[in-house]
Amino acid sequence: MKFIKHIQILVVAVLLVTVSCKAQTKTTSKKAQVQEHPSLILTKAGVEKIKAELGKVPLFDETLAKVKAEVDAEIANGIEVPVPKDYSGGYTHERHKRNFLILQKAGVLYQILDDEKYALYVKDMLFAYENLYPTLPVHPQTRSYARGKLFWQCLNDSNWLVYVSQAYDCVYDYLTEKERKQLEKNLFKPYADFISKGNPQFFNRVHNHSTWGNVAVGMIALVMDDAALLSTALNGLKKDGIDPNAKDNDGGYIKKAGQKVGFLANVNEPFSPDGYYTEGPYYQRYAMYPFLVFAEALQNVKPEMKIFEYKNGVLLKSINTLLNLTDADGKFFPLNDGQKGMSYFSRELVTAVNVGYYFGGNQPELLSIAKEQGEVLLDQTGLAVAIGIRDGLAKTFNKKSVEYTDGANGTEGGVGIIRANGSKNELALVYKYAAQGLSHGHYDKLSFSYYEGGNEVLQDYGLARFVNIQQKGGGNYLKENTTWAKQTVAHNTIVQNETSHFGGKFDVGSLNHSNKYLFDVENPNLQVVSAKENNAYPGTKLHRTFALIKDESFENPFLLDIVKVNGTNENQYDLPYYFMGQVMSTNFKYDVPKVLTTLGEKNGYQHLWNEGVGISDGKNSKLSWFNNERFYTLTAAVAKDDELIFVRIGANDPEFNLRREAGFIIRKKNAKDAVYVSVIESHGNYNPVSEIATNAFSSIKNIEVVYNNDNYIGIVIRSETGGEKLFLMSLNDTSKEKAHKLEINNKEYQWVGPYSYRIIN
Amino acid sequence: MKFIKHIQILVVAVLLVTVSCKAQTKTTSKKAQVQEHPSLILTKAGVEKIKAELGKVPLFDETLAKVKAEVDAEIANGIEVPVPKDYSGGYTHERHKRNFLILQKAGVLYQILDDEKYALYVKDMLFAYENLYPTLPVHPQTRSYARGKLFWQCLNDSNWLVYVSQAYDCVYDYLTEKERKQLEKNLFKPYADFISKGNPQFFNRVHNHSTWGNVAVGMIALVMDDAALLSTALNGLKKDGIDPNAKDNDGGYIKKAGQKVGFLANVNEPFSPDGYYTEGPYYQRYAMYPFLVFAEALQNVKPEMKIFEYKNGVLLKSINTLLNLTDADGKFFPLNDGQKGMSYFSRELVTAVNVGYYFGGNQPELLSIAKEQGEVLLDQTGLAVAIGIRDGLAKTFNKKSVEYTDGANGTEGGVGIIRANGSKNELALVYKYAAQGLSHGHYDKLSFSYYEGGNEVLQDYGLARFVNIQQKGGGNYLKENTTWAKQTVAHNTIVQNETSHFGGKFDVGSLNHSNKYLFDVENPNLQVVSAKENNAYPGTKLHRTFALIKDESFENPFLLDIVKVNGTNENQYDLPYYFMGQVMSTNFKYDVPKVLTTLGEKNGYQHLWNEGVGISDGKNSKLSWFNNERFYTLTAAVAKDDELIFVRIGANDPEFNLRREAGFIIRKKNAKDAVYVSVIESHGNYNPVSEIATNAFSSIKNIEVVYNNDNYIGIVIRSETGGEKLFLMSLNDTSKEKAHKLEINNKEYQWVGPYSYRIIN
Repeated sequence: MKFIKHIQILVVAVLLVTVSCKAQTKTTSKKAQVQEHPSLILTKAGVEKIKAELGKVPLFDETLAKVKAEVDAEIANGIEVPVPKDYSGGYTHERHKRNFLILQKAGVLYQILDDEKYALYVKDMLFAYENLYPTLPVHPQTRSYARGKLFWQCLNDSNWLVYVSQAYDCVYDYLTEKERKQLEKNLFKPYADFISKGNPQFFNRVHNHSTWGNVAVGMIALVMDDAALLSTALNGLKKDGIDPNAKDNDGGYIKKAGQKVGFLANVNEPFSPDGYYTEGPYYQRYAMYPFLVFAEALQNVKPEMKIFEYKNGVLLKSINTLLNLTDADGKFFPLNDGQKGMSYFSRELVTAVNVGYYFGGNQPELLSIAKEQGEVLLDQTGLAVAIGIRDGLAKTFNKKSVEYTDGANGTEGGVGIIRANGSKNELALVYKYAAQGLSHGHYDKLSFSYYEGGNEVLQDYGLARFVNIQQKGGGNYLKENTTWAKQTVAHNTIVQNETSHFGGKFDVGSLNHSNKYLFDVENPNLQVVSAKENNAYPGTKLHRTFALIKDESFENPFLLDIVKVNGTNENQYDLPYYFMGQVMSTNFKYDVPKVLTTLGEKNGYQHLWNEGVGISDGKNSKLSWFNNERFYTLTAAVAKDDELIFVRIGANDPEFNLRREAGFIIRKKNAKDAVYVSVIESHGNYNPVSEIATNAFSSIKNIEVVYNNDNYIGIVIRSETGGEKLFLMSLNDTSKEKAHKLEINNKEYQWVGPYSYRIIN
Repeated sequence: MKFIKHIQILVVAVLLVTVSCKAQTKTTSKKAQVQEHPSLILTKAGVEKIKAELGKVPLFDETLAKVKAEVDAEIANGIEVPVPKDYSGGYTHERHKRNFLILQKAGVLYQILDDEKYALYVKDMLFAYENLYPTLPVHPQTRSYARGKLFWQCLNDSNWLVYVSQAYDCVYDYLTEKERKQLEKNLFKPYADFISKGNPQFFNRVHNHSTWGNVAVGMIALVMDDAALLSTALNGLKKDGIDPNAKDNDGGYIKKAGQKVGFLANVNEPFSPDGYYTEGPYYQRYAMYPFLVFAEALQNVKPEMKIFEYKNGVLLKSINTLLNLTDADGKFFPLNDGQKGMSYFSRELVTAVNVGYYFGGNQPELLSIAKEQGEVLLDQTGLAVAIGIRDGLAKTFNKKSVEYTDGANGTEGGVGIIRANGSKNELALVYKYAAQGLSHGHYDKLSFSYYEGGNEVLQDYGLARFVNIQQKGGGNYLKENTTWAKQTVAHNTIVQNETSHFGGKFDVGSLNHSNKYLFDVENPNLQVVSAKENNAYPGTKLHRTFALIKDESFENPFLLDIVKVNGTNENQYDLPYYFMGQVMSTNFKYDVPKVLTTLGEKNGYQHLWNEGVGISDGKNSKLSWFNNERFYTLTAAVAKDDELIFVRIGANDPEFNLRREAGFIIRKKNAKDAVYVSVIESHGNYNPVSEIATNAFSSIKNIEVVYNNDNYIGIVIRSETGGEKLFLMSLNDTSKEKAHKLEINNKEYQWVGPYSYRIIN
């Protein structure tokens, strides 16, 4: 039911292109009738409503006061429009960035407060740009595949225009026609042309970069009422001459042959029907602002397009999806390239929540997020949110166990999120069995991360970059992003023969995706997600299943992790667990080296120090660690002679770009088939003030694989208190009605459906 | 003025011993009159007052409800008095610990609530112990120099008695005379005898252990009205037969020949006249409970002793001292052995703040700490605090720049704390030039740590121990505490020839202390502390000065660090800086090794990996790092060919007992004399949500030593914005009136007093 058929999408797309053509005609006819201003984000009617409510809506008033103070300080500081010179983090970059953010706010203040000083400020700054822009060559910094003029990349030039279009809209009527003509001729039109016609390799793509480019052009087109430009924004440049083998700075292809482009294509392709954005939450967040602000503008100026209903309302749906892709503190799960710490407190998410509330049926759950954010947009959407909060309509936003499919049609695997234990101490599994995720994708099929509250228990490393911190590679991606962060071994998933999935090749990875096997969270005490990957290593099949199980023999729900590997040849398999915190104890012996050497030479292994190796006795290996006042234990059923390796990130890192964090790798050598079964427990607590440790030891006596063939797996989990539980699963049949029967140790077990969990002792 | 002469102290001590003899006579006569119960912490009159206020004092009522819920749950759980078996962290240890904490609370509840179920619970548990105790051999775990019976060490046995005495006092009148006799004969008297006569090596010392022992015996003596036992508690055992060469588990001497012992000696010796406890804040906190609870009991039962006036009221003074030895979050500075995270939220500090408020003249600043603590003692002191808070009397506790002398007479160096920047973003320097600090002392003369808000900028490693976490060496000190944490190289101070101060020898260290040179915080924009150390390395003189300078060319006050070294031979000098966070950039080249080896073989060096070495060009070396959303830069004036070494803690650490944190060492080879001059800046900020970095670069262009001889040092600090400042200091004259004159680069500079800071350009 969740999937929309490919055909339906095409129909919708065709319809919309038609609609947008109609819209153009209409625009032309409307032009004669004189378009109102402001009309994009603020509207004349909206402004009247806002003025009528001033002083009566606390959160709106507070935001207004804050924005006013910020803009007033900038006005007092005076206008600075320097000649572009720096990468991000540098003065000219940050100054121009600040300018566009302030211009947008000043425009809004002019409308709401009717104070000409804001209009004058916008006007003066616009003419400073009008004066500078025509003199600018392409930006002197050369690292980008699409260099801008104000900034080192067209992406940032587009950011500028998305914001400045709104400022222009707000002061449109304040300016004389002559002034407007001058601005449009010398600044806005050439600006829009440069980021579109001037840079088709940037503009004509399906990518968050192009989304910004499309929206920049679209927004200024709406203000200037320029139908041709709007069409370019919506549907891309007709001609681009892009070489189908060309790649961008992140190693992604610019454009597949025959691919549709423009804003509508950028809604169609990267969003799955569930609203999951294939690049991952960090870039979804980044793209949300242009997606939603342009959608709002289209809705205001061209309501007949019904943009919020496009692709079954995916833009609005994506807001809830994104909010669900956060930990207990609202921080985004760093799937693919993602900077840790980014959260729904970002300005893009203020926009998303406000727009989502206003245009998406006033969901009261969004108000609780807006409350946490503590600010609103200064438009009719923000006003509605602030009124909702004032009137006590907010309801808790309960994050759910949920699966989000990936791929334009929802057929390219997905991401499964399983949660337990309520909100504050929430345990959350993030399981990735998605598509490549465009140029920001990591080679980490069937990888996972695990959270307790807002803390990482088993981490996804995220990206190797210090966004906008100039001393770290100009604030851009570091080479360790490629050599470490994207590599398979940087993730909690299987690595075969010390190579990355798909050989670390973007074009191969882009052709493939994992497949969901099952996702079932109906029973809150036994939530199961399972997926298969058959292409990461040709000839080797991977099947990984997680079950988050609430069992009264345990203090907290525990995570059962089952990985089946079926190879055609003998291989070495590594399964890393990047545990966060300090080792407390192990139940196995290991040797620590006198001298640290790297675990390997390439594919990320060159960045790992080998801190110690133990040899399994063939029973269970137990590793306990401590973090954030909690204890954790990983108990793994290991085969005899499995290597148990402690690693530390940070080798071959001459600029200290990597965090010196720990990992634990279970290595199987010369194995064709393999099965990894582990249980991860969160248990007990230690407070450095009371100095009392509770439940500091694992509750698991042992785990045992009691059945294992191509069709079934059976695992016994014995707890310290004596209980014995059996988890059974069929590996090739997910039918809920199918009855299964197995004999294990001379005893027969029967169940219906793909899996079963029972007390056997 | 601050120092009390040695002679005065002796007089006071003699007087008190006399007083306590008198008291004994009085007690005997009082006995015939029947001593009231309770009389130690709760008193009959105090209980009446409490009952009259029930329901009217919110914080008291809340605490009472919390304690009642806790005790009720334990009563429901039933009594468990297991046969002793485990180290700390293990079941029997934690159970007996919980028992004594609950017994004390149950006794209080009986008194306040008049509910016999609490008295019955105390009685039943006491008889369970009365039944068990006579059967017990010494504890089966053998690690302690003074094994207990209920616990592995007499220290914990003493903890038990300090709390249980209070419980016994509370139910004294509930029990029949026969019951009391039985308890005293079979439990309390043998118990007190075992931890005193049975373990003189534990009882007859000056040490936090003995304080607990003395107080345990003293408390039960007060309840039983046993004058002889009380005398033993106050003045120690007359005979002990302790070998003057005997050492405890921490390597400290048990007892110096001729040393006075007992409770009064434990007040006299380790506390300086400023209330600084020579072992450091972590153990001061630990000892505060017995010190204050016994002082309160003595004040109630033997007010004629005027215990709170003893040694110029040092016990009360020590409370404010301890509160000042915390960072912005209330966490204690981990001087000597100290577990990080321990704070004034501990139960010992609740006692300290409440007792300090009640007996120390109702300082309203203590109420603000009590408010943060959110609980009070259930006695008259806690009632007074809760009433004060209810009545709005609380005032902010402003932590000051302050010096605390060390040594019984305040003549053995000290600790200088310098603070700037207000409370939340407070910058705090902790500079240690104290005495050895008994067996918990570290070999770290002239070491420092530096804080911003509650975060460490340059850390003191603290101890190597996971207190009460059983899987880490039974929760006791780990061997890395000796091989790493106590060693000089584990601290931010000078190491000569890769050896520790005093050769790492406790007996040598104990004979020596550093000396204050000056401490002047009169000018809040220029706070200076300076000290000398002449004995750590025979033949080498160390003189280190810090100035925390607020200068308008800098965003925040910066820390100037000047170390002068004068040797008689050529040595290697290392100055480590254990910076917290991730390297952002350096202005020097360095090589990172392909294979990690240790920096040395012993004295802590065996625990450091060498992560990279640069060679200085003889100008300035700059290291910037990032932590907790802030940037920091260390700029050092270095000599040509100084080695700049990056280290990582964690080599030769087979059980992962050490934290993998970073350090930066400036190494001078083959140097007789040396001067280290550095500036540490906190600057800018980066927020991962806004992704905006501000002021990410150091404001220092360079620093230069422009004058340097045996009598003076002159340093020029040039800022990026062009300012040039000169810091001048006389190295052998601290007179405030003395006029100085120097010629530097053909210019004459004059100033009055030990130092001067001026703009010169």
